[in-house]
Amino acid sequence: MDRGALQPRVHDVAGAIETMETRGAANIATATADALETQAVESDAETAPELLAELRTAARFLLSTRPTAVSLPNACRYVLRRATGDTVEAVRTNAVESAAEFRARLETAQDDLGRVGANRLRDGDTIMTHCHSTDVLACVEAAVEDGKQLSAIVKETRPRQQGHITARELRELGVDVTLVVDSAARRYLDDVDHVLVGADAIAADGSVVNKVGTSGLAVVARERGTPIVVAAGTLKLDPATMTGNAVEIEMREESEVLEETDRETIGDVTVENPAFDVTPPRYIDAIVTERGQFPPESVVTLMRELFGEGPTEPWQEP
Amino acid sequence: MDRGALQPRVHDVAGAIETMETRGAANIATATADALETQAVESDAETAPELLAELRTAARFLLSTRPTAVSLPNACRYVLRRATGDTVEAVRTNAVESAAEFRARLETAQDDLGRVGANRLRDGDTIMTHCHSTDVLACVEAAVEDGKQLSAIVKETRPRQQGHITARELRELGVDVTLVVDSAARRYLDDVDHVLVGADAIAADGSVVNKVGTSGLAVVARERGTPIVVAAGTLKLDPATMTGNAVEIEMREESEVLEETDRETIGDVTVENPAFDVTPPRYIDAIVTERGQFPPESVVTLMRELFGEGPTEPWQEP
Amino acid sequence: MDRGALQPRVHDVAGAIETMETRGAANIATATADALETQAVESDAETAPELLAELRTAARFLLSTRPTAVSLPNACRYVLRRATGDTVEAVRTNAVESAAEFRARLETAQDDLGRVGANRLRDGDTIMTHCHSTDVLACVEAAVEDGKQLSAIVKETRPRQQGHITARELRELGVDVTLVVDSAARRYLDDVDHVLVGADAIAADGSVVNKVGTSGLAVVARERGTPIVVAAGTLKLDPATMTGNAVEIEMREESEVLEETDRETIGDVTVENPAFDVTPPRYIDAIVTERGQFPPESVVTLMRELFGEGPTEPWQEP
Amino acid sequence: MDRGALQPRVHDVAGAIETMETRGAANIATATADALETQAVESDAETAPELLAELRTAARFLLSTRPTAVSLPNACRYVLRRATGDTVEAVRTNAVESAAEFRARLETAQDDLGRVGANRLRDGDTIMTHCHSTDVLACVEAAVEDGKQLSAIVKETRPRQQGHITARELRELGVDVTLVVDSAARRYLDDVDHVLVGADAIAADGSVVNKVGTSGLAVVARERGTPIVVAAGTLKLDPATMTGNAVEIEMREESEVLEETDRETIGDVTVENPAFDVTPPRYIDAIVTERGQFPPESVVTLMRELFGEGPTEPWQEP
Amino acid sequence: MDRGALQPRVHDVAGAIETMETRGAANIATATADALETQAVESDAETAPELLAELRTAARFLLSTRPTAVSLPNACRYVLRRATGDTVEAVRTNAVESAAEFRARLETAQDDLGRVGANRLRDGDTIMTHCHSTDVLACVEAAVEDGKQLSAIVKETRPRQQGHITARELRELGVDVTLVVDSAARRYLDDVDHVLVGADAIAADGSVVNKVGTSGLAVVARERGTPIVVAAGTLKLDPATMTGNAVEIEMREESEVLEETDRETIGDVTVENPAFDVTPPRYIDAIVTERGQFPPESVVTLMRELFGEGPTEPWQEP
Amino acid sequence: MDRGALQPRVHDVAGAIETMETRGAANIATATADALETQAVESDAETAPELLAELRTAARFLLSTRPTAVSLPNACRYVLRRATGDTVEAVRTNAVESAAEFRARLETAQDDLGRVGANRLRDGDTIMTHCHSTDVLACVEAAVEDGKQLSAIVKETRPRQQGHITARELRELGVDVTLVVDSAARRYLDDVDHVLVGADAIAADGSVVNKVGTSGLAVVARERGTPIVVAAGTLKLDPATMTGNAVEIEMREESEVLEETDRETIGDVTVENPAFDVTPPRYIDAIVTERGQFPPESVVTLMRELFGEGPTEPWQEP
Repeated sequence: MDRGALQPRVHDVAGAIETMETRGAANIATATADALETQAVESDAETAPELLAELRTAARFLLSTRPTAVSLPNACRYVLRRATGDTVEAVRTNAVESAAEFRARLETAQDDLGRVGANRLRDGDTIMTHCHSTDVLACVEAAVEDGKQLSAIVKETRPRQQGHITARELRELGVDVTLVVDSAARRYLDDVDHVLVGADAIAADGSVVNKVGTSGLAVVARERGTPIVVAAGTLKLDPATMTGNAVEIEMREESEVLEETDRETIGDVTVENPAFDVTPPRYIDAIVTERGQFPPESVVTLMRELFGEGPTEPWQEP
Repeated sequence: MDRGALQPRVHDVAGAIETMETRGAANIATATADALETQAVESDAETAPELLAELRTAARFLLSTRPTAVSLPNACRYVLRRATGDTVEAVRTNAVESAAEFRARLETAQDDLGRVGANRLRDGDTIMTHCHSTDVLACVEAAVEDGKQLSAIVKETRPRQQGHITARELRELGVDVTLVVDSAARRYLDDVDHVLVGADAIAADGSVVNKVGTSGLAVVARERGTPIVVAAGTLKLDPATMTGNAVEIEMREESEVLEETDRETIGDVTVENPAFDVTPPRYIDAIVTERGQFPPESVVTLMRELFGEGPTEPWQEP
Repeated sequence: MDRGALQPRVHDVAGAIETMETRGAANIATATADALETQAVESDAETAPELLAELRTAARFLLSTRPTAVSLPNACRYVLRRATGDTVEAVRTNAVESAAEFRARLETAQDDLGRVGANRLRDGDTIMTHCHSTDVLACVEAAVEDGKQLSAIVKETRPRQQGHITARELRELGVDVTLVVDSAARRYLDDVDHVLVGADAIAADGSVVNKVGTSGLAVVARERGTPIVVAAGTLKLDPATMTGNAVEIEMREESEVLEETDRETIGDVTVENPAFDVTPPRYIDAIVTERGQFPPESVVTLMRELFGEGPTEPWQEP
Repeated sequence: MDRGALQPRVHDVAGAIETMETRGAANIATATADALETQAVESDAETAPELLAELRTAARFLLSTRPTAVSLPNACRYVLRRATGDTVEAVRTNAVESAAEFRARLETAQDDLGRVGANRLRDGDTIMTHCHSTDVLACVEAAVEDGKQLSAIVKETRPRQQGHITARELRELGVDVTLVVDSAARRYLDDVDHVLVGADAIAADGSVVNKVGTSGLAVVARERGTPIVVAAGTLKLDPATMTGNAVEIEMREESEVLEETDRETIGDVTVENPAFDVTPPRYIDAIVTERGQFPPESVVTLMRELFGEGPTEPWQEP
Repeated sequence: MDRGALQPRVHDVAGAIETMETRGAANIATATADALETQAVESDAETAPELLAELRTAARFLLSTRPTAVSLPNACRYVLRRATGDTVEAVRTNAVESAAEFRARLETAQDDLGRVGANRLRDGDTIMTHCHSTDVLACVEAAVEDGKQLSAIVKETRPRQQGHITARELRELGVDVTLVVDSAARRYLDDVDHVLVGADAIAADGSVVNKVGTSGLAVVARERGTPIVVAAGTLKLDPATMTGNAVEIEMREESEVLEETDRETIGDVTVENPAFDVTPPRYIDAIVTERGQFPPESVVTLMRELFGEGPTEPWQEP
Repeated sequence: MDRGALQPRVHDVAGAIETMETRGAANIATATADALETQAVESDAETAPELLAELRTAARFLLSTRPTAVSLPNACRYVLRRATGDTVEAVRTNAVESAAEFRARLETAQDDLGRVGANRLRDGDTIMTHCHSTDVLACVEAAVEDGKQLSAIVKETRPRQQGHITARELRELGVDVTLVVDSAARRYLDDVDHVLVGADAIAADGSVVNKVGTSGLAVVARERGTPIVVAAGTLKLDPATMTGNAVEIEMREESEVLEETDRETIGDVTVENPAFDVTPPRYIDAIVTERGQFPPESVVTLMRELFGEGPTEPWQEP
């Protein structure tokens, strides 16, 4: 990959993502769109193919910094698929416009998503949630702003107890919160109107990758007759799964599960600490995005519309 | 209740149970049978009805010490239902014999149960378990003694992490142990041949009361196609449920779930910490007892056979 | 069948049942036990076999009056199976005692059943019910007497709208009542803690015959995660089903479903008006009887215990 | 909203809809398209933005007459989304063409839908239906025209017994009809090849709003292994649900369920009389529209294609 | 084991079973009861304990001939559990009577079972069956004798195509037969009123061991809403499973599945040819025995009643 | 239909398809695209409408040769829908380009599909498969090329035992193969990671038509918790099902199921030998195509995108 023609801004953004100075799915995506736009604007390319090649190189360079984040390639897909044209000017204009469009949507995405999710909640409802998701919080916040009074049963979400953060933020929104251990979920589901969880990635087959424990919660919620809704911006759609690739499940540190002193007492055991699990679409009632709500089996249509089909990524040399 | 005729031994046993000097389901049951036997042997009663009344009084006195334990009333039921007769001698003999029989069975119960459960396990099998149950351990131990190599996936069992105890004891038996958080159960069930859990009480409708999280595990195990077996001595059968009474679910300290410092950060939340939950019989493949294995829907037959029907308890005045 | 030796009382009871002067499952059963007792007491039989033959003849005569009622043969089964002996005196004594025992149990059966069912209900619970069942009402009444506040969603139960009777009687007990059409059941099940229905007959395979609509309600209640409880005295157990016989489903008048004027407008249609349907045991959580609660799959044990096995009915000549 | 520029025809149409002179989903939709076309043709607007603003105003004025009908906004969406252009002439042409296209499709929609639905039915089949749906009737009619002999089991559909109308119309088509009470559905489903029902609205998450009782029927049909098909023209798709809004369920008069005299006998009860309920997509095998048949989970694609996404309605000022 | 005191008849019977001269579950059971009776009658034992020891020795000797047949140990259990007494005479009488009783029941068992099963079938019904079972045939024969017209869909039952035998015997009974490959079952289940299969053994947990393919058929029949009935005499109950032992599944010759020439073409593959599989009780609606029909979850009660509990077999030295 | 203007090449291709000289879905499709291209290139038509009419005639002529193949009409749909234009030249160019595009895709389709399917398989996985599918083989081959070690359990697939072909080809790829009879599937599913089957046609409602036995396998796989994946190129999508038409199920020769000699032994039985059955989308986890993987409920979107909606086929005269 010849990075000679890349603008300094591209190098800066790539560096900031790599060092985790730029963090968070939305921030990474915005910076990526910025970098691609700058490349298009500042490039010295004299022909359209030349500029297109530069954009592909820029995208591949940016992608190399964080190979597992899903928002970074989605920003590249969005801009590159639209930055077409027969002249340098056309490519440039399209790149600038699509980058702007992408950022504009991203800026309002969580609010838009929140309003969609909020419409599903009625005054007086009780939700159950797992882990901590800003998308879920956005739905609750929008509902509270609509004057709805909500209660929440919050699973603590071992091993990292992100439920504590969720509990605190829900309290700040004025929501009544009951905290329970993860194992108590089934016992409380009869009091729950909606299970509402976020997602780390959504696959082409409609399955949802989210914090470990989500899939068990979804199965039990279905058994109890409680609807389960996933709140997830379209940035979480993972077009790489179109080609059958599974979302890789991060295995985390043993020490999150078992402290050293406990391990010494127990003896020689293996500790498995997967960060996520996979919930099949048949246990999910709806996926709430900033583009509206969808049955999980339909989200592949949105994925292709926004980001194209995975088999030929727009940054690959033709 | 006139306790004047009660033997000192009855008072001693009642006291030891009340102060929790005598602890553990089996120990309480054994002491109770002892006390009733002593009362029958040492009594000055001159007629059968007189002796029978004394035995009822003794039983009620013992029962008053720990109103929620299930093994104590079962010991009373076992002995009193069999301590019948028209003469003092007959009642006395029957009381002595039934107390002896009860104790004899109890002594071998866990070993017998272990052998039954072990027969369900094959060499090379992997079990998943929840919480800590000596009945489950007895099954594994008997299987290991039969030369079977077993692996176990142990759920840590928040909030009190009894899974750590289970993990340690399984290691001592030479079982390969993988420890996971409770939320990871569904992800690992495809590698599991049997879910094997204990029980705190078994109700007449076949439902199983066990450590909170059991019912969710059972639902998910059924969804994954993994059989679920409950290992529970007949002492856990609760004839009081014949009359429709639910087993009362103990609500434990909030501090087990949420430490004071975390609570201060989170703010004003409710914490619910139920010790147990209820698994319907349709999610259980078999209940393993020292009297053999039974479908959960049939265990009521064993309950009536051993302890009679709840409606009229044998310690009630006729 | 030679009825020469039958006592006038037997003829009187048979007549009163046939003319429907004696009505209602319990009344018919009581009168039947009375008649058999009278025959045993007043008979001129000189040998045990002679008296036993008379009792069988009396039973068959009584049975011929109402071939489909289930309480009548159960009264005969209960008394005849226990009226054994080698001497006239022994048979007579056993007949008198078993008839008395049967009547005594019957007298308290509904209260006993009500107490068992009431124990399943908690203060503040909402039940849903279908049709009109005195056994269901007995459960609610006992719960109300225990100081529990209950609400009820009552299905109107087309075509005869017995739900109106249920609604009125529940109101008299102080229960909050919401009346809905049968089709609205699923919409309201999320607000319901227990579906509670009666039974016309219970078969050996654990299936429950009750007012048409019960089986659909049970399926939907299971889908919604709501437990379904059947309240039915043991008199409803039908041992004839031991031999594989289905409970015959009465087909009622078309005019209950479609008035003549409507039919004229519609034209030439068939109207099917089955009185009952059959709910498989897998959709029922418990059967509440005066002998305690049972999983539906276990009720055959109680059936055999009380009334024997169907293959050889006690009124058949050996 | 300045209605000064609206053509008299728009006022007339709005008036006729408001006074219910114009009734029925298709009639309302046709009149709405007419009114928008007239506005486009007769307008004095001198610029495209001016004309577009008039069309939005006209749409909002028409929408204000019947805020809950789904066909009226769908007509507006269809025309306004296509009535775009940079010149008055372009907007006018597009408005006229899209209005014409919309009306043309609507005219043949029910026949087209009928043919699609008819293809699912085989000679000799028995259908079960609920309530009265012209879309269902269109399917049956087309099948009968194809020479297929059909039978139907018609649920009476309390409280308004629209099943009687269905029964009459099916008879007129030469279909054998059996009428049953709603509660008898499960008993007859084993004789049924297809459950075939209409819809009042279809939501973005694939759920179907139809006459109360549909969702229970669908659950029971799935349990019995009988496929369930919904016949519903695309006019029933409700894009407002894209944004998470639930379709509002009309609560109707108590007197439809309980006559005054019956109420007096019963006493003080609440009557709930919801007109509709919501069937989740997982219980529906196919939705038959005039554009072909779709899995319920895919219908959101059709919804977006025809009427756009709800979040920004085309009549909102930009 | 000292076999010196065994009667020649015991040796003869054991020999005939071992050489398979005596074959078939019922024949083996009858011969076993005969041998035990002869031993009791002809023995020179002078005390009851001596005779009891001889009977135990005889049973163990007989059992050693065919360690896997289930009817042989059941005959021993039935006779030995009842052949008790304090005197030689008492033991002898009880042995003779219980052997006679066992044989008498066995003789009529299949007819009795057939009548029970026949009562579940209605005129005009279609059954589906798998493999070849004389118990199933007995049900059909009894139904035909009752004048019922039946149809049957017969699965061919690879690899040994026992369906051909079933088809022929059903034709001889005048039943309309349709033969299909095993894979076609689901397609035809909608036309079927009952799945009716036999059993090789029934376990204490209610699971049914039968010809491989039965469990898949049962799962699919449940999915299609078709009831599944198992016809199996009580001789098939396997009390050894009370202790948790699984019924061992015979693995048969590869050549039944793959002919040598085919294997040569295919190359180096493994062939697995299990004779049986295990159907969990939750997929079975009823088990039809000669003692009436039972839910599978209740059959353990019958097992204990007839043959005692497995843990201590009556032929073990005390 | 006036075939006077058709080019000789069209006649040749039609003849070769009719005589089955040209066989196989892909070959037929390629030849069809060729013929249409030739017609477009060689035509003497002087106006666009004239050329379009010729292309429609050519398509109808080709379709008449094999009315049931699905690839032939799909080739016609693909080319004709894209061969539009206002001038002869435009139509011709579009026809040539779309035919070329269609062929190009077809050429790489199976490899592309194989790579998508392979990505779902992990090293060490075991698949179960039914019948013989080149699409399934392509997935396995691609996985093997990726260095993954796979095992396979192959169902023999009566009556034609195509499992033998599959077994041989899998062996050639180095896959460990276990061959079982079809009835043994459920017993081995616990050892299986993926059920992987092909398809003969995929309908608009998401249901999959494949070799008889597939639907039962899918139901049982779901019950066992094993995912089921269908590998099928987009050529198998059947747009004719958009209009509600069912895919016709071929009934094959009786002799495949029952040899003449066996039939003579059995007597007068019917043999039903359906070639295919229909699996509802709810039992399928994903459909793997050369365009990526899709939930079965979403495949209708792909169908419309590639081949248009069935209601108006492009070869019909307008």
